[in-house]
This record gives sequence, structure tokens and C-alpha cells, in this order.
Amino acid sequence: MRLSIVSLVLLLNSLVHAGSNAAPRWQQIAAERQSYRDASISRVSPRIPDIDPGSLPLNVLNTARKMLTSREVWITENGSMELLDHLARGNLTATEVTRAFLRRAGIAQKLVNCITELLPERALAQAKALDEYYQQHKKPIGPFHGLPISVKEHIGIKGLDLNGGFCSNVGNIATEDNDLVRILTEAGAIVHARTTQPQTLMHLETSNNIYGTTVNPYNRNLTSGGSSGGEGALQGIRGSSFGLGSDIGGSIRSPSANNGLYGFKPTPGRIPTGLIAVTGGTEGVSGTLGPMSTTLEPLSLFMSTILDAKTYLNKTSLYPIPWHREPNFPVDAGTPRKIRIGVMRWDGVVMPHPPVTRALNEVVSALKAHEDQFEIVEWKEEGTAEAWNIISALYFADGGQQEYAEMEKTGEPVLPLSKWILTQPNVPVPPGFRIQELWNYTFAASAYKSEYSARWLAAGIDVLLCPVGPSVAPKLGTAKYWGYTSMFNLLDYPAAVFPVSKVDDKDNGIWDYTPTGEKDKWNFDLWDPEAYKDAPVSLQLVARRFEDEKVLEALNIIHKRVKLPFIDPTT
Amino acid sequence: MRLSIVSLVLLLNSLVHAGSNAAPRWQQIAAERQSYRDASISRVSPRIPDIDPGSLPLNVLNTARKMLTSREVWITENGSMELLDHLARGNLTATEVTRAFLRRAGIAQKLVNCITELLPERALAQAKALDEYYQQHKKPIGPFHGLPISVKEHIGIKGLDLNGGFCSNVGNIATEDNDLVRILTEAGAIVHARTTQPQTLMHLETSNNIYGTTVNPYNRNLTSGGSSGGEGALQGIRGSSFGLGSDIGGSIRSPSANNGLYGFKPTPGRIPTGLIAVTGGTEGVSGTLGPMSTTLEPLSLFMSTILDAKTYLNKTSLYPIPWHREPNFPVDAGTPRKIRIGVMRWDGVVMPHPPVTRALNEVVSALKAHEDQFEIVEWKEEGTAEAWNIISALYFADGGQQEYAEMEKTGEPVLPLSKWILTQPNVPVPPGFRIQELWNYTFAASAYKSEYSARWLAAGIDVLLCPVGPSVAPKLGTAKYWGYTSMFNLLDYPAAVFPVSKVDDKDNGIWDYTPTGEKDKWNFDLWDPEAYKDAPVSLQLVARRFEDEKVLEALNIIHKRVKLPFIDPTT
Repeated sequence: MRLSIVSLVLLLNSLVHAGSNAAPRWQQIAAERQSYRDASISRVSPRIPDIDPGSLPLNVLNTARKMLTSREVWITENGSMELLDHLARGNLTATEVTRAFLRRAGIAQKLVNCITELLPERALAQAKALDEYYQQHKKPIGPFHGLPISVKEHIGIKGLDLNGGFCSNVGNIATEDNDLVRILTEAGAIVHARTTQPQTLMHLETSNNIYGTTVNPYNRNLTSGGSSGGEGALQGIRGSSFGLGSDIGGSIRSPSANNGLYGFKPTPGRIPTGLIAVTGGTEGVSGTLGPMSTTLEPLSLFMSTILDAKTYLNKTSLYPIPWHREPNFPVDAGTPRKIRIGVMRWDGVVMPHPPVTRALNEVVSALKAHEDQFEIVEWKEEGTAEAWNIISALYFADGGQQEYAEMEKTGEPVLPLSKWILTQPNVPVPPGFRIQELWNYTFAASAYKSEYSARWLAAGIDVLLCPVGPSVAPKLGTAKYWGYTSMFNLLDYPAAVFPVSKVDDKDNGIWDYTPTGEKDKWNFDLWDPEAYKDAPVSLQLVARRFEDEKVLEALNIIHKRVKLPFIDPTT
Repeated sequence: MRLSIVSLVLLLNSLVHAGSNAAPRWQQIAAERQSYRDASISRVSPRIPDIDPGSLPLNVLNTARKMLTSREVWITENGSMELLDHLARGNLTATEVTRAFLRRAGIAQKLVNCITELLPERALAQAKALDEYYQQHKKPIGPFHGLPISVKEHIGIKGLDLNGGFCSNVGNIATEDNDLVRILTEAGAIVHARTTQPQTLMHLETSNNIYGTTVNPYNRNLTSGGSSGGEGALQGIRGSSFGLGSDIGGSIRSPSANNGLYGFKPTPGRIPTGLIAVTGGTEGVSGTLGPMSTTLEPLSLFMSTILDAKTYLNKTSLYPIPWHREPNFPVDAGTPRKIRIGVMRWDGVVMPHPPVTRALNEVVSALKAHEDQFEIVEWKEEGTAEAWNIISALYFADGGQQEYAEMEKTGEPVLPLSKWILTQPNVPVPPGFRIQELWNYTFAASAYKSEYSARWLAAGIDVLLCPVGPSVAPKLGTAKYWGYTSMFNLLDYPAAVFPVSKVDDKDNGIWDYTPTGEKDKWNFDLWDPEAYKDAPVSLQLVARRFEDEKVLEALNIIHKRVKLPFIDPTT
């Protein structure tokens, strides 16, 4: 090893105390990045007209459609599998598909502010090469041949900025493609858009000082979710049919749910990560990358494509577990095995708003109508509040010192949701815990995992069906309850979300409920059917650690058998 | 969850500051535990005579033999596979085998002080039940049918003391069997002896204030190694043919090497651990349990038996990776694939003593004589000193506060090797690192792992052949260089050790070597062929993380082809 690692550690440790007093220059950085973004969009052809934000309705799905040709609308409203099929048969060229998605993504930026940059030249050059390959070989180059995909900004792409939502990191250029980007590109995918993320990457909304706030295309008063909220909004508006996010507390699942998408948080360590993140050394809670998609099937295609690349043979940090294709539930075979589904109606702390409970009831009723295939078990959640106390402490065992240091470098304001998460009751003040205090929390996390696993085994369930959050897409600035998603980050359990319905007239009327505590009351008071109009209603399906195949297989079976979604939120 | 985990954390955190000033009572605790141990040995029949320690030679292997009947010698000097074969065929009863090992283990205690307790009643009751099973079914109950095994004390057995080498923990009674004990017992194994370990479990020797010092049966001036040093000494003297140890810095490999045994440290997380340990919450370095054995084959039998029990289906902390039986090296099949062996002659910091280098040269020469099957690649080690600085810091990120607290509870003295390890240069003073400092070390550990893995892949080797330490079994009190073993704990790589030879006249003469640094000089000055007389000389074989099957398969092939050991150290 040329570089002395310990010398590096000692240097880093000396910097712990250093601090920084650079003059505030974040506004300039932000203006430059926005110009760069706008220039990338202005190079899309045909040129995308300017839009007066004051003229926009709350729901901008049709606004986007109206700015496109009918063929562009048709192309971009296909799911990924249909597009891949057309591309594989030569019915569509990668170039035409890419042009259409570049156009719709550029429009999405003007409607909901979800893009950090488009990559028109690069994407069209790749598309051209793929089309030439297809011409020559009469077959696709790989399972993602010609599909435009979008990628959350902090998932690195060689030669491009990698700032992770901090002004201070602008100008940090990735020296190589993230492994997932590399594998998907080798499989034929074309990255056409990079998407926004919040300051600190630790909001379930998307707002930072570089690009401002990303909003929800179904209702611009609501958040697109976060931290992969640019990805959520872009796909919600169909500026992309597939993309990559990351999740350490709900950051794939929240924006997927808020925008009527399918999202999957795998078991951490099954697929490569290789993120830059401020908390580079912490091992308390493991984040993971994962797919977000307008349709369900690409989640499995993504997992099999990534694991078939066998990166785990080279990276000892990954578990050498291939993607198992053998079914867990041979329900279509001669010897049916029922899927035993636990139903968690609430987490014992915050009761979900009426549309969430309605959707859960609708799905459970539909499942019960197929008792040959599904068995329903009521699941009572326990220890949710404790799970949050543990995970919030472990997120910021240094009291957020690293995050504060990044923000201080350029003087950028600490945004309200950054301040909120960094001052959760169990987060220590900087410089953070004493080691023994940290170890007590990691010990508590281990105990929580053991007890949860034991309860799961005792219940004998295959998967757990539950809300993704205590509401549909939250009103901007109110995404302050992570319990329904972060619980499964603490547990390292794989979890998928899927759309079921949308908020509509069914959800009017009085909500006859008496809150049980402070957080419950807070969420109760937020409910107002009109405020959440048009928002997609989604649910979550979870399996135990390492049972990634099982949860996706179960979701595919459920999805097909009970015909989800019951109401397509895009209509 | 009934118990509030966070309440528990807060309670634990309040205790961080509490301290304890109980009156010293460790001598009384030690006297009681020694009486308990002696009573357990006195119940072995025929009764084991007392031995005058002053009359003993340095090498007590023949002393033990002479105290046994020829049939007891024959039984106990079989390897586990031969015993299991005799038991499976009905040539030996479990009762006779157990009686013989109880006798030899009792003698071992009187010669080298390696036992915390024998379990004559319990073991013979199990043996009787197994013999009855065999009578009835005419077949063994499982792959370990009737084999007496020994277990390091801190691996819990229901109803028995679990002190981990601290006086303060005496009286802590295990409420259940450790998973490995349970699985092996279900497979027919009989625990007949529990073995000693050092204070803190963090010496590569075995001395604590409860039982005193365990010595090496080949040369009582040398250490049996540690921390599984009771296990090493007991098996060295053949008071057991198979047993369980644990390893977080070399604690299986050091005592195996020092006593001419085969030992295996699996990849942490492949087999259950479930240890009590003072550092219950730390995630910086992962320890693991593993097998120690007088012969090679039982290491693989152990791994397949444990993994076939599929504990990973119940415990989400384990990796769901079965034991792969497909060969990596089909060298006996039609299409031979050579085993590419890296040879690390020294670690760049401390040059091994002449017998170690001699054994390595002998093995390499023998391998080179079979170039149809083996390919040798010289491996230059890099970053060893940094690896030690990182791992020693991560072992005790709290500055050893927990260890000091345990010792203070009873006033037991801090033993010299405890003090030495707790004051390594990169270990902080209590209460330990600030979080950012800890994260910098975990970051450095990740970087070290990545760089090591990349170098390994670049070299294209299958396994790495290297010393187990800078000497054979160290003189008592001098086991202060862990680099050759701890490096592979930091890396989470599986590693096996095996005997090659013994120290003899070949190792006399001048050692023409000029030390390169302080640690090297210290080790150089320790060399004296007479002082290490009769000590076994062992080597280590390593594979990458998760390649447990590969390293054992390679070792089995090497062992058979070059006919190891070249000199049986027991003769």
C-alpha cells in the first residue's frame, strides 16, 4: 500500500478539530450549477419551451403530456419491459426512445424541478452506437438494450459532478462510474438524466440550496418525497421509466410511494453501493442503492442483471449470493404453497391517514378473496418508537458534526428538515457519543433485530404488508415521520413499494379517530382530503434479511392475482 | 417488545460513568473456581493420581502417555475421523471413548493447566444414551456420533459458568447452549471438557487470575498460545481430538500452531457465534468461532455439519450461504486446474525465526516438485504495520474502558499481556475515541480491505501460504506480535493453520539476519534454538472473504500431495 492509511487517519483526525471559516459563497455555487443544468436542457432538440410557473395547475401530468407529440407520449408512457421488447424487436430505435425521454425529462424539470442535469450528447451518442450494434447483430447488446434510465446525482458517473446535495461538494468530479451504472450501461442502458436530492441526503423530501425544492407532479403542494425525490418526480411525470435511488431510511420507498412508482430497497450488501457519503466510516446503519420504476417487472430484471454480473467475486464487501430464480411459491405448479402474509395496519405510534388504511383494506379484502393462494395473518407491531430512537442515534453518532462542517464550508443555510433530523431526541450534540454510548446503541440494534426476527418466525409469515408512511405524499415540509420505512433499514430487511390507488372522493368525510400520542396527534391534524388531492396511495411489502427474491416474487404474484393498482394514479 | 431497548441503553449509558469500588475478592473467587475444577477431575474414574509439578520434564507428552493404559493411549491418539469410523461400525462404544478422553484430559490439567472443568457425569450419560441409540438403530445418530469434544470456556453451555476469563463474571450461568454446541451435540458429539482462556480474551497466550497460566505440553517454558490456549494445550496432549475456539486476532490459529494442531478461522458470519464478550456492541472487527483438531479432515466435517443445520434461516445476522461441496480444483478429475499459491515469506515488519522459514521453504520446495498441480507466486506483503495500527485501535475504541471496569470490579490485577494490548500506540485513553476518529479508522479499514483485495486479484492467486507468527510457540510472556494472524481478522479472510515440522537440530547454527526495525530486532533477540526445543512448526493458508471451502479444499489437496506434516511433532 503506497499511501499510509494510518497517516491518513491521523491527518483526518487532526482535521476533526480544524473547522473552516470560508466566506459564504453558496449562492454563487448554486447559480452556476443551475445555469449548467439549464444549459444541458436547452440543448435538447426539439427545444423545450419555457413555462410560466405561475400558470401551472397543481397536477401537471397532463401539462407535460400536452407539450409532447402523441408519439413522444406513447413512447414515454410505455413501461420499461414494453420498451425493451420494442427495442429488441427493432420496432423502436434507441435514438428515438432517448430523444423522447430527453424531451419529457426536460419538461419535467420545468414543471417540478427534479433534474440536476440532462446528458443529451452523451445519451444520444450511446443510443447511436446501440442502434448500430443492433443493425449489425440483429439482437440487443444486453437486457437493458437502449433503455434510457435516470440516476440520482450522488450515484457517481465518471467525469461528472458528484455533490450529494451539499454546496461544498460541487466541483467534486467522479473518477469512475458507480458499479450499478457500469453494469447497466454494459447491459445496454443509457443514462439520460441525473436527478435531485436533499441537503444531507437525509430528508424524506427533496430540497437543497443548490437547486431548491422538487415538488410532486400529481400535486405541486406535496413533496415528491426523498431523498431520491428527483428520481420520484421525474418518473412520476414519465420523464424516465426506470432509475436508480438509494435508501437508508426510506429514500427509495418514500419517493416511489409518493409518485405512484414501484421501488425496491434490497438487503444492504447484496448489490454494489460505492457511494460517496459524508458518513463514510459509520457502520451503524447500512444504506443501499436500488431501483425505482414505473412498472413492477423491471425491479426483478434489475436485480438479476446486477447479480449476474457477479461483482461480489471482486468486491469482498459484498455477499456472494447469486440471484436465485427458483420460485418460493410454486402457486402455478402442481403443488400450491400459499403465501402467508402478515398485515401491519399501523405501527403502534402513528395511525396512517384514511386513504392509506383504505388501500390496505382494499388489498387485504382482495387477497382474502383468493384464499387458495394467500393466507392473511394480523401482525401487531412492537417497539417502533424504540427502533426510531436507535436508528436516529446511529445515523448521527457524531451529532451531525460532519454535516454541519459541510454546510459551514460555504455558509449555506441549514434547511429546516436538516435541522429537524439532526436534532432528533436521541441524536447527541457534536462531537457525539462516547464509544461506550455508541456500543450500547449498536447492542440495542442487535437486540431489536433478534427479537423482530424471532417474532416473525413465530408468526410464520412469508412477507409483511404495511403502509409506506403515515400519509400519502406529505405536504411540503411535513415529512417528519420515518417509522414505517426506517424500521426496515434498522432491520436490513428488503422492502418493495407499489401503487394501489389515488386520493379521491372516497376519502372525504370525517376521520373518526382519537390520536394516541404526540406524533399521532401531529399526523392526525395534517389530514385534509382536499390537500392531498390526486396523490397516489401506495403500500409496502417486506421480507426478512436476504429474502430479496421472495419479496419480489410475492409482490409479482399478488400484483397479478388481485390486479393492482386498483386505480392507476396517472389517469 | 416487552423490554424497552432504549430504556436499557439509557441505563447502560448511565453506567458508563458509574465505576465500581467493590473490595478485592478475586482471590476467593479464583480459589473457589479451582476447587470446583479439581472436584470435577477427581470424579473421573479410574482416579487420576496427583503429580508433583517439580518432577516434570519440559516435554510432557510421554508423561501423559505413561499414566494411561495402552488401550487408553490407542483410543486417544486416533484422529476424530478414525474414532467416528470405529464408533459408526460399533468397534468402539461412546462410553469407552469418553472415559479414555476424560482420563487423558484430567492428566492434561495436572501437566499443563488447561481445564476449567471436566464434565464426567454429563458426558458419560450422553455416551450411554448414544450407545443405547446405536444398539437399537445399528447406526450413528449423526456425523459426530460419540465423539468427545472440548470447548473453550466462553462458548456457553446451558447451566454452566460463563466467565470469559474475568473474575467478575464468575457466577454468570449460561441460560442456553451456544448454537455450535447445540448443533454438534445433536450430531452426536459429547462435550467432556471445558478449556482455559486469558484475561480479556485478548492475549495470544493463556493466563488469567482465576486459573493461572496454561503452558505448552511440548515445552512447558513456552506458551500454549491463546486465547483458545486451553484448547490448544489439551488437544496438543491429546486429551481431546476436536474442539471449539474463537478468533478475533489469531486466537484459534496461535494455539493450533503452537501445539501442532489444525485450526480454522472461518469468515465471520458464516457460522453462528452468539458469544458473550465484553465488547458486545462493537462492530469494528468481527470475531468468529471455529474448530481446532488433531487431524485435518474434521475441519471440513465441522463446517458442513454446522452449515447443513441452516441456522442462517433463523438468525438474520448470519449469511445464508450453504457449505458448497463442489470442488474448486478438480485436480483428480479429467481437466486439472492448478492451485495458484501465493507465498508470503515475511510480512515486511518482523522476520520469522529460522524454523518457520525452514518449514515454509520445505513446503514450497515440495509444492514446486508437483508443478502439474501447484503454481507458486511470490507475494510481497504491504501495509502490515498499518493493519495493526487500525485493528488495535478498533479492538479498543473505548480505550479498554470496559475491560478495566471488569477487572476493577473484583480488584483482580491487570496482567502484563492485558496491559500490553490495552496500551498499544493507537489505542486511545479511556473513554476512547471521538466518533469522527472512530469513523476515520473504520474508513481506513475499508480502504485496507479494498486495496488488499485488488492486489490479490491482480496476483491471481487462489490461496496464500504464510507463517502463523514470527516464531514457533513463544516463550511465556513474549507473544507480542499478532501481525501474521490479526491481518486476516481485519480482512475477514478465512485462514487455516497446519503442522509441518518441529524444532530440532536442523535449526541450530547462526541466524544470519539483520533486523529492519524495532519489532524485528525484538523478535530477532528472542531466537535461541534451545529455548524452543520440541516446539511444533506450523504454517497458515488463507483465502479471500467467503472462500472458506476453497481454503480447506486447497489445504486438503496440499496436505495429501506433499504428505504433511514432514515431521510429526508428537513423536
